[in-house]
Amino acid sequence: MVEPLTFNDELRCVELIDQTLLPREVVTIRCHNAADVAHAIRTMQIRGAPAIGVAAAYGVFLGLRGCCDGHEDLSGRLTEVVELLAGTRPTAVNLFWALKRVRTAVLQAVAGKPAVGLGEAAQQAALTTAQAIQAEDLAMCRAIGFHGAEFLHDGDTWLTHCNAGALATAGFGTALGVFRAAREQGKTFRVFVDETRPLLQGSRLTAWELVHEGIDAVLICDNMAGSLMAAGKVKGVVVGADRITASGYVANKIGTYPLAVLAHYHKVPFYVAAPVSTFDLTLDAGSDIEIEERDPNEVRALGGRPTAPTGMPVFNPAFDVTPPELVTAIFTNVGVLRAPFRESIAAGIAPHLEAQR
Amino acid sequence: MVEPLTFNDELRCVELIDQTLLPREVVTIRCHNAADVAHAIRTMQIRGAPAIGVAAAYGVFLGLRGCCDGHEDLSGRLTEVVELLAGTRPTAVNLFWALKRVRTAVLQAVAGKPAVGLGEAAQQAALTTAQAIQAEDLAMCRAIGFHGAEFLHDGDTWLTHCNAGALATAGFGTALGVFRAAREQGKTFRVFVDETRPLLQGSRLTAWELVHEGIDAVLICDNMAGSLMAAGKVKGVVVGADRITASGYVANKIGTYPLAVLAHYHKVPFYVAAPVSTFDLTLDAGSDIEIEERDPNEVRALGGRPTAPTGMPVFNPAFDVTPPELVTAIFTNVGVLRAPFRESIAAGIAPHLEAQR
Repeated sequence: MVEPLTFNDELRCVELIDQTLLPREVVTIRCHNAADVAHAIRTMQIRGAPAIGVAAAYGVFLGLRGCCDGHEDLSGRLTEVVELLAGTRPTAVNLFWALKRVRTAVLQAVAGKPAVGLGEAAQQAALTTAQAIQAEDLAMCRAIGFHGAEFLHDGDTWLTHCNAGALATAGFGTALGVFRAAREQGKTFRVFVDETRPLLQGSRLTAWELVHEGIDAVLICDNMAGSLMAAGKVKGVVVGADRITASGYVANKIGTYPLAVLAHYHKVPFYVAAPVSTFDLTLDAGSDIEIEERDPNEVRALGGRPTAPTGMPVFNPAFDVTPPELVTAIFTNVGVLRAPFRESIAAGIAPHLEAQR
Repeated sequence: MVEPLTFNDELRCVELIDQTLLPREVVTIRCHNAADVAHAIRTMQIRGAPAIGVAAAYGVFLGLRGCCDGHEDLSGRLTEVVELLAGTRPTAVNLFWALKRVRTAVLQAVAGKPAVGLGEAAQQAALTTAQAIQAEDLAMCRAIGFHGAEFLHDGDTWLTHCNAGALATAGFGTALGVFRAAREQGKTFRVFVDETRPLLQGSRLTAWELVHEGIDAVLICDNMAGSLMAAGKVKGVVVGADRITASGYVANKIGTYPLAVLAHYHKVPFYVAAPVSTFDLTLDAGSDIEIEERDPNEVRALGGRPTAPTGMPVFNPAFDVTPPELVTAIFTNVGVLRAPFRESIAAGIAPHLEAQR
């Protein structure tokens, strides 16, 4: 099973796959302290919002090692470690959420305790919480995957975009979780993998994950999906999501929206796989979602080698927005949502988000 | 003006832009003999079917230099030179067509002539024919461009794919000829350029051509066209064609078909620009067109650096086929074709093809 991060209980350290070296090399690195984890997150050796959250939680545990001589010392160390980890990726929501949860658990565990054994109790609380976050994320992915796998039939060929995979989560993945679940159910199928320009998460990460697990996968350029659909070779499309609004607009990696239009034109079902935490019910229309524009050099050069004229103007949005009318269903960890999405999200997702507050 | 190839009358040699070095360097290389031209075609320093045809025609002229002591000598040399040039790119139809035309012109020019002055007459006939092929191709491109430019309005933003440009023809280009003509008409507009994976002809060649001529151009990845259209930022799409059937199916660079579907969905007009010679009336349905599959390493690696797992299975078709119902109009050198295409092609194109037989 592909897991971006595992806790080595014997050595009391965290082991993670260096994703910057994939797919050329599979190198496992060991993090022995919070600084190691912070470095791994900052340099994107580990990436994907849920995976970063899990790593940061373990980072707090590692950071409390050898701690502490009393409450003041512990409180200082905890703040220091949390700040170090929080400063690694400024926009990762799961990172802050995980750090807050571990910090609260540690403070609750030591509240009113004598100085003797304080450090041990704090470390144990951090470790237990990190393991809980990891286990919960894995369970959510498995639930998403098994809900989605109901829609994949034996002999099907599906298409996916970017990497909504095990590497981005605690394991199993969201969109790729559908394929893992289908495989556990004994189904035979093939997956076309969009390379996903400009950063090639499809060829670098998704292709690697699927090949690693022996799933039949074929890599294509993003502009080849159309002719595959025209030839009747795609029975379903499944993608992840970065954010989903109250009315069902889906923000995801650039290139998702044209796939949804192509699927619609060819009457191929288009599915989105995402946990409850992806829904942002403070937003409604697609235009409410702000789209980040990224460095033009991602498009102007490949592997450091220029492929376009120097200074060529570039438009490089990181995400696009797919409207609900192009979405067949959304696979979540609490069930499958269908149109009308405003109603199904209000009924199926809103109560879970309120419960988490 | 961008021209892939010019005849230097003073030095009696052919000068061409080394397209393998674009866009990083603009290097002009001089061909003094047929072997130089053959090398340039073989190594793709010059590419694009019409441009190759022009180069090969000049190659025959250069190959007859210092020739010849009588008819037998001339005939031997001519055969040798034509075979050398014909062996460079085995599937380029324009190459064979141009070589045949020059060879016929040379043989006609020397028929029944005495040995004295034979070489000079042969060379002159080859040069005149090469110049005629070049001038005719340029005139065809200008006609295509001006027919198409009628559809581009002041202030428009259009989108193009691959390189149907000056570099692929004698100059001016087919799809890019529309932009050059619009510019000559004093129109102001912007062009979005698809980078065109896997070989990046858009970023390497089209972006360079447009920037070189001061046309407002913005480079995007192929998977970004959808969100531009959704935002209402594309008023028209124009692409070239590799082959068009009697019923109007258009084979062109992979990625053309999904653009046509997106344009249809967003009610954006989708235009094809191509000379009469692109029509193949021996074919009817889209499935009649054989699609070449290319080297998987074009998709598995970038600039020699692997970006996918070793041995990753790949689907890499060079072309796709756009059905006539997604095409708004076809700009040709003899006028604009509209639906129903079977009828407009029969009336507008067939007579010209028959006349050329």
